[in-house]
Amino acid sequence: MNAIPDPEYKARIRKFQANIRAAGLDAALVHANESDFANVRYLSDYWPTFEAGGVFVPAKGEPILIIGPESETYARGRSKIRRIEKMVEYRESAEPQYPGIPVASFKDIVAKARNGKPIKTIGLVGYSVMPLPVYTRLKKDLPGARLVKADETLSGLRTIKSAAEIALMRKAFRISEQAIDAILAEIKPGMTELQVIGIAQREMYKYGAEYEGHAQYCFCGPATNNAISRPTHNKIKRREVIQLNIGARVGGYSSSVGLPISIGPLPARKKRLVEFGLEAHLQTLSLMKAGKPAAEVVKEYEAFVTRRGFKKYMLYGPCHGIGMMEVERPWMESTSEYLLQENMTFQVDTFFADRDFGLRWENGVRVTKRGVEKLSKKHMRLVEL
Amino acid sequence: MNAIPDPEYKARIRKFQANIRAAGLDAALVHANESDFANVRYLSDYWPTFEAGGVFVPAKGEPILIIGPESETYARGRSKIRRIEKMVEYRESAEPQYPGIPVASFKDIVAKARNGKPIKTIGLVGYSVMPLPVYTRLKKDLPGARLVKADETLSGLRTIKSAAEIALMRKAFRISEQAIDAILAEIKPGMTELQVIGIAQREMYKYGAEYEGHAQYCFCGPATNNAISRPTHNKIKRREVIQLNIGARVGGYSSSVGLPISIGPLPARKKRLVEFGLEAHLQTLSLMKAGKPAAEVVKEYEAFVTRRGFKKYMLYGPCHGIGMMEVERPWMESTSEYLLQENMTFQVDTFFADRDFGLRWENGVRVTKRGVEKLSKKHMRLVEL
Repeated sequence: MNAIPDPEYKARIRKFQANIRAAGLDAALVHANESDFANVRYLSDYWPTFEAGGVFVPAKGEPILIIGPESETYARGRSKIRRIEKMVEYRESAEPQYPGIPVASFKDIVAKARNGKPIKTIGLVGYSVMPLPVYTRLKKDLPGARLVKADETLSGLRTIKSAAEIALMRKAFRISEQAIDAILAEIKPGMTELQVIGIAQREMYKYGAEYEGHAQYCFCGPATNNAISRPTHNKIKRREVIQLNIGARVGGYSSSVGLPISIGPLPARKKRLVEFGLEAHLQTLSLMKAGKPAAEVVKEYEAFVTRRGFKKYMLYGPCHGIGMMEVERPWMESTSEYLLQENMTFQVDTFFADRDFGLRWENGVRVTKRGVEKLSKKHMRLVEL
Repeated sequence: MNAIPDPEYKARIRKFQANIRAAGLDAALVHANESDFANVRYLSDYWPTFEAGGVFVPAKGEPILIIGPESETYARGRSKIRRIEKMVEYRESAEPQYPGIPVASFKDIVAKARNGKPIKTIGLVGYSVMPLPVYTRLKKDLPGARLVKADETLSGLRTIKSAAEIALMRKAFRISEQAIDAILAEIKPGMTELQVIGIAQREMYKYGAEYEGHAQYCFCGPATNNAISRPTHNKIKRREVIQLNIGARVGGYSSSVGLPISIGPLPARKKRLVEFGLEAHLQTLSLMKAGKPAAEVVKEYEAFVTRRGFKKYMLYGPCHGIGMMEVERPWMESTSEYLLQENMTFQVDTFFADRDFGLRWENGVRVTKRGVEKLSKKHMRLVEL
């Protein structure tokens, strides 16, 4: 089973429309691009590539999928939303003109979706990635409409995962573990970080991934200091921290398993921080359960790290939401104002760094009434090959 | 050699600033995201992941790289632009708050880059991917400034490739050919399309790719009808067209090699169209050389296909620009208004489709005074395994 069942897509639209109405909106326009695909895929299973994608959802009635001029065959083959319109504003960034391909305007789309009823307020979802051509066309086609950021009308639905979503995430995490098994069997000094990524890619696709769940990490030595980075042609060396963050995507759902390893024993200073990192990681797991305020998890985690004398090495953490995107709402920050709920899924992301290296333990969890279900747990130990 | 030399980055900024001045602009703001990274990377080598990236380039003086709150270590490690500022508008789409991380405003950035001189007109580059948070912040911080789409101030520089750029593209195409060699050696009936992609991924990273150059294609049977699509868990079958479009990226430069293959002989109707496709592909190559109007290539190509009686199968083509992005400016369309120039690089992309299948021959070329240099030519023949 690699897919969300069709009735679940219909239920998503129904619930989203209830939120649209509750927010006093006449409709929502949802946006996605190739790397930030989740909001559109959640509603339609359509996953744009090269071009962008949108969903226009009226407060009542049928939604319309909006695609670029080249994607019609692809969209008809996979979209759960049957009404599809092409717009030039969703084309590739190279901005071809496509002479001869007929396209729609937002005026056409609103007329179809609202049966001619005028529109006053449109909620924008995926606001952070909505690009200027879409926005300026909206303003031009619908000069009377008020446009408001409305991510919360959809993000709340995505936060609590269904049984089908959790099944896909479990599978994605299992594949990430298998990819790490292959790396541990094959990694050698002298390989480049990028060659290690190649091992992971091969395994992920072999076991049923549809894509990587995020840009994969393999960093060796000083490069492990990066919270965000890209692997390079740097060579793997003995007795250095090698940081792996490997994540497969299955049926639209991402995963990531992160662990520091070494080839040969680590020097004591590095081993001490790596081992404390794992302890702090397990501490976060023990702090989580349904009903707990998210900010409390953060504060208790930070107090634990401070008490143990490692505060100056703490860079980041302890958790962010995971689902379709490897990083999605909600983050857990000291400013968070929500309670953990059953079937929220988080990436427990434990990052410490010293001046010349860093390490990160990452595993996914599902919040339960009594604690958490670990979506991965195979690689929660220090491996010195 | 996997990188553009440092002095070339300085020259790019100088030439871009000359264009900014010639366009009557006081500065340009350039945007990139994870999947549409090219404009920012061209100027800085910075390649955002998870977060977005920008470059603020004043008409005179030092440019400033703009990153999200989490990317500072990464950016300091790889950006050729030394001045770096963080802005919350460039954060991840999950919109974390990052309590405690200091960030800049566009007012701060303009003050630094222009030494306090006021700003009247800013050109927006990467307009098609510039998102609303960046735009609304610009409007708020610089209420007097006029904002204009200005992609042409940078795209012209990217169109004519330097010797270093062409060397990276040659290497990327060679790696794509090697990945296809491995697929041809290993593909079997019963494998999924996605498992075939895993073979390509492994090989690309093994031979020195930094990433895929585009979302990889392996489609079997009816799925070959898609101009844009994604590989699936569909199983590879004998005597069907299997479409491969495999592209590595090296040092920021993309490639793609596309060919239809089969396991066992193709039925005559399919073989005829596949073979005509290759003939049409070679025809395009023969039409190109420096000085030729791009629209003429398109018209002569279409006339050739029509004359040979295959017009109803023609979906697309014959060329689009390739470089950092696998699809970039300029496209070749019947409406194009430019002449081919030496060291422009194109993807010759020849696509035909019948009701139940399609096929695509793709290879890269560099325009020369007398014709083209083929950036790939190893797989220009019908392979029936």
